[in-house]
This record gives sequence, structure tokens and C-alpha cells, in this order.
Amino acid sequence: MTTRSEVSIGLIGTGRIGKVHAEHIAYRIPHARLEAVCDVNFSSAQECAARFQIPHVYDKAEPIFANEKIDAVVICSSTDTHAQLIEQAAAAGKQIFCEKPIDYNLARIDQTLQAVKKAGVKFQVGFNRRFDPNFQEVHRTIVEGAIGEPHIVRITSRDPAPPPIDYIHASGGMFLDMTIHDFDMARYLAGSEVISLYAAGGVLVDPRIGEAGDIDTAVITLHFANGAIGTIDNSRQAIYGYDQRVEVFGSEGMIAAENNAPTRTIISNVDGIHSPLPHHFFMDRYIDSYIAEMKLFVSAIIEDAEPVVTGIDGRIPVVMGLAAQRSLQEKRPVALDEM
Amino acid sequence: MTTRSEVSIGLIGTGRIGKVHAEHIAYRIPHARLEAVCDVNFSSAQECAARFQIPHVYDKAEPIFANEKIDAVVICSSTDTHAQLIEQAAAAGKQIFCEKPIDYNLARIDQTLQAVKKAGVKFQVGFNRRFDPNFQEVHRTIVEGAIGEPHIVRITSRDPAPPPIDYIHASGGMFLDMTIHDFDMARYLAGSEVISLYAAGGVLVDPRIGEAGDIDTAVITLHFANGAIGTIDNSRQAIYGYDQRVEVFGSEGMIAAENNAPTRTIISNVDGIHSPLPHHFFMDRYIDSYIAEMKLFVSAIIEDAEPVVTGIDGRIPVVMGLAAQRSLQEKRPVALDEM
Amino acid sequence: MTTRSEVSIGLIGTGRIGKVHAEHIAYRIPHARLEAVCDVNFSSAQECAARFQIPHVYDKAEPIFANEKIDAVVICSSTDTHAQLIEQAAAAGKQIFCEKPIDYNLARIDQTLQAVKKAGVKFQVGFNRRFDPNFQEVHRTIVEGAIGEPHIVRITSRDPAPPPIDYIHASGGMFLDMTIHDFDMARYLAGSEVISLYAAGGVLVDPRIGEAGDIDTAVITLHFANGAIGTIDNSRQAIYGYDQRVEVFGSEGMIAAENNAPTRTIISNVDGIHSPLPHHFFMDRYIDSYIAEMKLFVSAIIEDAEPVVTGIDGRIPVVMGLAAQRSLQEKRPVALDEM
Amino acid sequence: MTTRSEVSIGLIGTGRIGKVHAEHIAYRIPHARLEAVCDVNFSSAQECAARFQIPHVYDKAEPIFANEKIDAVVICSSTDTHAQLIEQAAAAGKQIFCEKPIDYNLARIDQTLQAVKKAGVKFQVGFNRRFDPNFQEVHRTIVEGAIGEPHIVRITSRDPAPPPIDYIHASGGMFLDMTIHDFDMARYLAGSEVISLYAAGGVLVDPRIGEAGDIDTAVITLHFANGAIGTIDNSRQAIYGYDQRVEVFGSEGMIAAENNAPTRTIISNVDGIHSPLPHHFFMDRYIDSYIAEMKLFVSAIIEDAEPVVTGIDGRIPVVMGLAAQRSLQEKRPVALDEM
Repeated sequence: MTTRSEVSIGLIGTGRIGKVHAEHIAYRIPHARLEAVCDVNFSSAQECAARFQIPHVYDKAEPIFANEKIDAVVICSSTDTHAQLIEQAAAAGKQIFCEKPIDYNLARIDQTLQAVKKAGVKFQVGFNRRFDPNFQEVHRTIVEGAIGEPHIVRITSRDPAPPPIDYIHASGGMFLDMTIHDFDMARYLAGSEVISLYAAGGVLVDPRIGEAGDIDTAVITLHFANGAIGTIDNSRQAIYGYDQRVEVFGSEGMIAAENNAPTRTIISNVDGIHSPLPHHFFMDRYIDSYIAEMKLFVSAIIEDAEPVVTGIDGRIPVVMGLAAQRSLQEKRPVALDEM
Repeated sequence: MTTRSEVSIGLIGTGRIGKVHAEHIAYRIPHARLEAVCDVNFSSAQECAARFQIPHVYDKAEPIFANEKIDAVVICSSTDTHAQLIEQAAAAGKQIFCEKPIDYNLARIDQTLQAVKKAGVKFQVGFNRRFDPNFQEVHRTIVEGAIGEPHIVRITSRDPAPPPIDYIHASGGMFLDMTIHDFDMARYLAGSEVISLYAAGGVLVDPRIGEAGDIDTAVITLHFANGAIGTIDNSRQAIYGYDQRVEVFGSEGMIAAENNAPTRTIISNVDGIHSPLPHHFFMDRYIDSYIAEMKLFVSAIIEDAEPVVTGIDGRIPVVMGLAAQRSLQEKRPVALDEM
Repeated sequence: MTTRSEVSIGLIGTGRIGKVHAEHIAYRIPHARLEAVCDVNFSSAQECAARFQIPHVYDKAEPIFANEKIDAVVICSSTDTHAQLIEQAAAAGKQIFCEKPIDYNLARIDQTLQAVKKAGVKFQVGFNRRFDPNFQEVHRTIVEGAIGEPHIVRITSRDPAPPPIDYIHASGGMFLDMTIHDFDMARYLAGSEVISLYAAGGVLVDPRIGEAGDIDTAVITLHFANGAIGTIDNSRQAIYGYDQRVEVFGSEGMIAAENNAPTRTIISNVDGIHSPLPHHFFMDRYIDSYIAEMKLFVSAIIEDAEPVVTGIDGRIPVVMGLAAQRSLQEKRPVALDEM
Repeated sequence: MTTRSEVSIGLIGTGRIGKVHAEHIAYRIPHARLEAVCDVNFSSAQECAARFQIPHVYDKAEPIFANEKIDAVVICSSTDTHAQLIEQAAAAGKQIFCEKPIDYNLARIDQTLQAVKKAGVKFQVGFNRRFDPNFQEVHRTIVEGAIGEPHIVRITSRDPAPPPIDYIHASGGMFLDMTIHDFDMARYLAGSEVISLYAAGGVLVDPRIGEAGDIDTAVITLHFANGAIGTIDNSRQAIYGYDQRVEVFGSEGMIAAENNAPTRTIISNVDGIHSPLPHHFFMDRYIDSYIAEMKLFVSAIIEDAEPVVTGIDGRIPVVMGLAAQRSLQEKRPVALDEM
């Protein structure tokens, strides 16, 4: 691979997250350019191409893989297409950014990662929260040793409202759909791998979620290799907004990240002292992290460096999600190497 | 029992916590009077009597039980004497306040509670934290329904520094010595009983604690009868002070209690924005709760009402502590009715 | 004067503040004892004597001055009696604590301070806020040099509700009744004397206050000798409670003291994030400062040391209040040495 | 004027702020397009044109005024050129956005505003802080009546470090260079005009600023027409960063805006609890406000509406700055209609 000063990108999938990446690549990411876009919904792809002045537009990914001018692909299609598209992209020698998860099947993931490895292309998985300025600062503080050895990693991750029941059915379950981000965050912050976990969960928000075979509330205990203990608490419905906090307690101190809010205003009246709610929408909260992860992907290509979030980082949270499902079913702690 | 306008109290035990109760009864609790005091260390009892102008001073409890003028006893002696003193006090018809725990043996506790029941006297156990203004406000908010149904109860309880290793040996283990307060708090806040729990723990602070057969760091998951899930995190050493926070998340919102600090001052300089540490000493943090629990005990006697913290409230956290020990040993969730 | 291990106190005046001092001396101040109490309202004095077990009770101060066993007097009678009582107490060789203000007439103040000086007794004026833990921490931080040279001193002092109109008439005006505390605080924190000031004020809360010849809202600019600038903002009615904050900005940083609140609880619901209001009542906010100032007075007597708040500290804020009145009337900055 | 769907803009001046506006118009402002750019420093203009793909580039403004395709100009050249450029742009029928101040000479300002009025073009002055999300929320809250009638308006505005001494010489003085933003903010928030003001100021940061005939520290009292009182405190050097807060106290409550910081992380260690400093650089703090003001300008053109910040809003803060200078010199309050 020769060094390059600009990265030419093909975007696969123009749903919500695809459009977000398109806008960022078009306007906010230096040294990147959208050369082509595709979506099985062709009119969606056309609309995206028009809006961001993308030269080529298709209803399938193959012409993107075939285009020699294209250095890299950004895969934002539906989850069930990820593994195959990654393999095709790898075979075509494209650098690959793929939204999480790679797949829900571990064997399929391994096959995919093998293909990537064989092709020798870069591969970055879209665990965007690692690039959130708050969590990055928490990570930096831990790595610098400012809190000593981590002892307790506490993650609060609560959505403002449950997704539609239809989505629940196709989601792979809360652990693989929602907690997967927290599993990644736990590994990222603890600086150690999870050996086993214990998942407690229930249906407290909406009985229809239970009828769909899923849960909406959970507390997961993580046992890390270095002896640290983690605890994640999840809810599908925090009525006050998108609640995304972490706290890492260590031998020399504690670092915490509170929620962001749209303003820093405070009203005092006869009823109390009132601050604004945290951002309600994940895109408001994590917009900077989406930009930062794409910048990292582009600069990894330009500087021929390894992306920060690799294939193995894409695999392990799926293992954790599957282990959590088993723990919940069998009401016992489950070791990750059981999976 | 006839109503009375003043409660005459005999204090049993003049160690650290005994002296605190003595000072409060002498100066801060209306309608209460110290009539007698005893301690096996007679000079300690004498010193206490002199300081708070207590008429009678002894080296054993029997004369207190025999004194008909005394309405109530406050038992602050060592844990191994609690059960017997409670039984003696009950037999003498005294109203009883006893520091936690009643005992570490469940059969012994049941025997003691039986004696109290038979005597028909009031019995209050010293779970003072229920009377902390912060936690009371959390409780009040939940009871009023302001956060809807509780879904997740999160308790952080970290000591500023581990006790001496000698103390560790005699402590009954971290779950019965330290977490017992959090077990009580969890029940108090959730408004529901714990069915089973899972305890993760380790020795991360000081290997000598491990050599003594104990742990110093733990995360405990609680399964409540109403479906709510609890998580308690403990450390024997929070280098930044005594960290005592709770957060209860429910269907309609969240109520949290942050730490108290000596002042509300904030320094901004080139290094950052700096606030004072929370209180370092449990007595600084919980002084108001000690006064409030004793006021409640006195007014329960005067108004012939049931104390808020009863014998069963003294028993259950011990059950939880024993279950947590088993869970840790056997690496599995343990139901409370196994104990 | 010989050193002594206990201070015997005569209390003059048993109104609201007198009763507060009585309770503190009775229960909270080591090495102090109430020997006598008087009030022109004899039944009030009797009630106070009964409640705090004070041996002697009178309807006038003279027997207190005549009692050789009494070391010190605490003057809490109405303002118009302060100067004469101070002079009588000084003549009788009593140590003197007097509530602010000494008087509203500067010549009368000077005469009184002369009498105190001649008698060689200790004299402390009740500017209790200097003993508030928050403001003490601010002061300590400044004195230690942690914020460098003070440049801007900002004081917010707002009452929760205006006093009755009758009180307004007798109050001496807002500057002498309310701002006088802030004038003292400004001097205390700036570590420099005020040379001149400019007062802006108006009637925005209640027109009846204006009809009584007073104002209810003010902003006062202070020019300090060391070049620092101060700004005080006052209101007679902060609907959200008793708002008492300071902020001192200096060459190396800033130290601020926020309001205290009864609890550190935070409710998050669909409407926002809500914290409790600050204390509404001055006694709730400043209770610790009242205890601390009396401890200081007692220990100054026992250790034969100069009290921290002296006669001159009682005089200068009156000068500032009179200057502020003139500034408001004449719509111009006024130098303190004009007064 | 016909309605249009896109606004074609000519940018005049490519210094720091010019480049910021160029980037925003290029990437962040829908319905706007940069058609031409000029700067007396032609290479700077060329660089800007290349970076943002602007078709036409000049070393003077005249070709921009002559270009009929251009709807609007954004004037970011040096202050001394503003008035003339505004007049030329108005004569050419261009819509005008101009950085503050219009001029330092009131007669010149009036002449300019007359030219704008005669031409019937839109005219917006760059008081960007009105568009800061925090201050907009404060404003919105006040306008909605949530704090009742404003009584006290308090603005803290402190720079992280003084500008170079050379800049000080050319700045017009601190009141016209720095406080001018706060004068605008005071009017914006109070919803009332300032009648008179009193300025206290001094040289506390750097004696060279005094030697240049300027001050570096100030407290200004504002008397509003509605009786409200304002207080602004300024420093050229807040060692902890760019300190930009407001607080408006009213009959029904208070609304305050605290500083923004890069993250919401909190470190607790043995030394205390530490939060990050506010943004140090004005562009970090106010980036959103620059985007928002330009969006407003563009939409005012498209929708043929009056801009929120008009010519008179550009004039009054200059009057206030001149009045503050006189007040400081003559040590007296100065009415604005004296100027």
C-alpha cells in the first residue's frame, strides 16, 4: 500500500447511520472524499448522492468493490449483510470500516476476521463511544495512572425509550443490541479482559418486550482478568433522557464522566433548582464520537496505522453478549471461554 | 405501659459509639435523660458519667436492669454480648435500643427476637443510615411515588481506609461488618425484600486482608421480590474519603443522593476546578443520623409507637451477609431462603 | 485578668437571637456557663432561665453587672440599648459580646469604643458570618495565597422574604440592617479597607418598602485600598430561598462559596434535573457560625486573646452603610472619609 | 427583493474571524454559498478561496459589490474600514453582515446606519454571543416570564489572558473592545435599555496595560429604564480560562448560565474533587454561536425578515463603552444621553 494524501470512500448503506457518516465525510473529515454510494433502496442512495455530491450511485455494493479508485468502504447496511460485505471488500483489497456488530454468530465472525487478515486490509468496527470526548478523557486518565489500578468499573447505560416491538424481535436481544456497547466500554476502560460474567435481568418497562422474548432492564457483573470487578446497569427507558455515565474507581482515586446536556443553565424558583436534562437522542450525545471514529479510520489509512478498534474488538463484545444471555437463562455466572 | 413525658435511659457500653449516644442523649435529645451508665472498663464508664453528669455508674449491666426508674437501655457493648444483654433487658421489661448486629448466628438472633416479643418491649436496631437526611429524602421521594416503580437500586459504599488487620479478624467478614449497612439500605429504599443475591469480591486493596480470610472489594447483585435489581459496590479504601451514595432508578425518574462535604467552596486555578472531598470520617458524615435515630427511639417510647427499625430489620441484613459469603465461596447466586 | 478554665456568662436580652445564644452556651460551648439572664420582658427571661437551668433571672441588666461571679456578658437586647449597655458592662469590668450594630450614630459608637478601651475589657461584635464554614474556607484560601492577589470580590446576599413593614421602619434602612453583614464580609475577604463606594438601589419587590423610605434591591460597588473592586448585590426577596454566596477572583485563581442545602439529593424526571433549594431561614444557614463565634468569644477570654471581630470591625460597616445611603441619595460615589 | 432559495455571499476580509465565517458558510450553513472573497492581503484571500473552493478572489471589495450575482456581504476586515464598506455595500444593494463594532465614532455610526436605512438592505452586526446556546436559553427563559420581572442582571466576562500590548494600543480601550459584548448581552437579557452607568476600573493584571492608557479589571453598574440594576465584572486575565457566565435574578426566580467545559469528567483523589477548566479559547466556547448567527443572517435574507441584531444594536453598546470611559475618568455615574 502506498501512502496517500486523500482517501476515496465508498459508502454501503444509506439508512440513518449511513447518512450520518456521509455528512461527516463530506463536510467534517479532512482528507476524505465520497466517491460512490449504494443502497438496496436505490432512491435512498440517490438522495444521499445528490445531497452530498457523490459522483457514483448504485443499488448494490459490487460496483464499489470493483472501482479501483476507491480505497475504503464504510459498511452501514443491515447487520445480516455485514459478514459477507466485509469478506467481499477484503477480497477486493478495500480498507474496511463496518458498523457493529460484525455478526451474531461467532463462527461467522471468525471466518470474516480470517478473510480480513488474509487480505491484509485495515478493519475498524464502529464502537463509536470509545471516541466520545468524555469517555476518552476517562480512558486517558486511567492509562496515565492517575487513579492507580482500576478496582471497580461502573457503567450506566440507559436508553430514553424502548425501540418498537418489531425492532426488538430482530435485535438479537438487549445484550447484543444495546449492552454490546457497554461490554466494549468495560474492556476499553478496565484495560483487562472479562473472564466471566453474571447477568441479572427482567421485564420492568414493557410486558410486550417480555412477550418478544427479550428483557428491558439488566444489571451485569463482570469479573476481569486483573481482579477488577465491573457492573453495568441498563434500562430501555430512562424517562429523563439518554443516561450514559461511567465511573472507574481505583487504588489512587476515581474518574467519572457525567452526562452532557444541551446547555449549562440553571433555573432557581420556588420549586427547586433545575438543570436541563441530558441529551435525549443518541446522535446528539455521540455526534462528536462519530466524527472522531471516522477521522481515526481515515488517518489510519493515510498513515498506514492499525485502527484503534480492531476485529477482535468487534468479536469479544459479541461473546460477552452471548455469555450474558446464557447467564440470564441458566441463572449462574458464565465464563467467556464456555462460549 | 403508661405514657411518659421523659425517658430515663441506661447506657451499656462506653466505647466510641456509646460516648456518641451519651452526648446526644445529654445535650441533643429532648425528653431523654441518662440515669445510669456501665462498662466492663469501669474507668471508661466513670469518665463518661462525669462528663455527662450521669447519676449512676457501674461495671456491669445488671444494676441497670434492676433499676426500676430506668425505662430503656441503649446497648453499645461488643457484638458478642448483644444477644444476651437484649434478653436480659427484655426480661427486665426495658425498652431496647441495640447497635447492629444483633448477632452473627441466625438461630441466636431468632432466640433473642423471641425473647423481645415475649416481653412485649420495644426494640430498635442501630441502622443509623436510614436516618441520614439524604437517604431519608431519597426514601421519602420513592414512597411518594415521584420516581414511579423502582427498577434499579444502586448503592456505593466505600470506606476511606481499611480497619486494622486485627479488627478484620474479629469483624465477621466485610459483608457482615460493612456491607450489612448497605443490605439494610437496599431493603429500605427498594420497598421490597431481596430473594437472592450474587456476590463478586476480591482482595485488591491489601493482601493482608486476604491472608485474614476476608475480601476488601465487592460488587453484589440483588434480586428483589418486586423484580427490581440492586447493585452494591464496596471498597475498604476510597482514597478520596468516605464515599456513600445511592441512586434509585424507576419508571418515572431517578433520585440520587450525592456525598456531603464540609463546605460548598470551589477553587478554580490553572490546574482545574476543585471541590472539597466528602467527609472522611463516618461520624462526620452520619452525625445527624445518630441523633435522629435516638430521637426516634425516645419518641417511639413516649408515644408508644413501633420503632422504624425493628428486630426483623436487624435479622435480614445478617441473612444477606451470610448469603453473600456463600455466594462468593460457591461462585453462584444464592437464595436467601437457603440460609 | 487571671486565666480561668470556665467562663461565667450573663445573657442580656432573650429575644430570638438571645435564645439561640443561650442554647448554644448551655449545650454546645465547652467551658462556658450561663450564670444569669435578664430581659425587660421578665416572663421571657424566666422562660429562658427555666429552659436552660440558669440560676439567676432579672428584668434588668444592672444585677448582672453587679454580680462579681460573672465574667462576661452577651448583649442581645434591642439596638438602641447596645451602646449604653456596653458602657455599663465595660465600667463593671465585664468581657463583652454584643450583637451588631453597636449603634447607628458614629459619634455614639466612638464614645462606646472609648469606654471599652479605657476599661481594658474584651469586646466582640456579632458578625457571625465570618464564622460560617464556607466563608471561613474562602478566607483561609485567600490568606494562604492560593488565588494570588484579590482583584474582584463579589458578594450575593439575598433574603428569602422582606421583613414586615413595621420592621422596615425601625431597621435603619436596608444598608444598615442587611447589607451591613456584606460590608463586613467584603472587608474580611478582600484583606483591604474600602476607600469609597457607589450604591445603586431601587424598590422592585414591594412598593410599601419604598413608601417607608427604604429600598429593597441594591448593587453596591466597592473601591478597596489595594485597588481591588467589590460588588455586592442585595434583594429583600429571593423567592427560591436565602441566597448567600461569595466569589473572590484573584491573580492566580478564584475561590467561590455556593449555597448550602438541606440535602444533596437530585431528582431526574421528564421535567429536568432538580436539586433542593438552599436553606430558607438564616438560622438554618448560619447555625454553625453562631456556635463558632461564641466559642471564639469564650476561648478569647480563657486564653486572654484578642477576639477576631473587634470594636473597629463593628464601626466600619456602619460607616459603609451611611456612605451607601448618601451615595444612593446623591447619585455619586462617596468616600468613606466623608462620613 | 424577491425570495430566494440560496444566498450567494461575498466575504470581505480573511483574517481569523473571516476564515471562521468562510468555513461555516462552506460546510455548516444550508442555503448559503461563497461566491467571492477578498482581502487586502491577496495571498490570504487566495488561500481562503482555495480551501473553500470560492470561485472569485480579489484584493479589494469593489468587484464584490459590482457582482450582481452576489446577494450579501460578510464584512470581517479591520474595524476602521467597517463604516465605509457598509456604505458601499448598501449603495450596491447588498445585504450586510458586519463584525462589531460598526465604528468607535457615534456620528460616523449614525451616518452609516442612515446609508443602510436609505438603501433598504438588511444589516446584522456580529454580536455572536446572543446566539450562544446558554445565553439563548437564559433569554428564552426570561422572555417566557419564568423568572418574573428581572431585578438584577449579573454578567461575568473574563478573558483567559490579555492581548499583546500592541493590540491594546489599537483596541479602543477595554470597554469598547471587550466589555462591548457584555453591554450588548446586558441589554439583550434585561429586556430594557440602560439609562446610566457607573464604571470602576483599574490596572491589576499588567502595568504595561496601564502605561498604554487602558485598564484590565472593571466592575460596571448599569441602571436600566425598568428599574433593574446590572453589574458586569471584567478581567483581562482569568488564569483558569475563559470565564463567561450570566445570572439574571427576578421576582419569580433566577436563571443562570455556567461555563461550558470540554468534558463532564470528574477526578476524585486525595487532593480533592477536580473538574476540567472551562474552554480557554473564545472560539471553542462560542463556535456554535458563530454558526447560529450566520444561519440567522442567511435565513433573514431568504425569508425577508429583520435580523435579530440590528444597526441600533450595533450602536448602543458603543454609546455604553464611551459612557463607561467617561465614568471611569470623571469618577461619577454617566447618563447615556450625555454621550
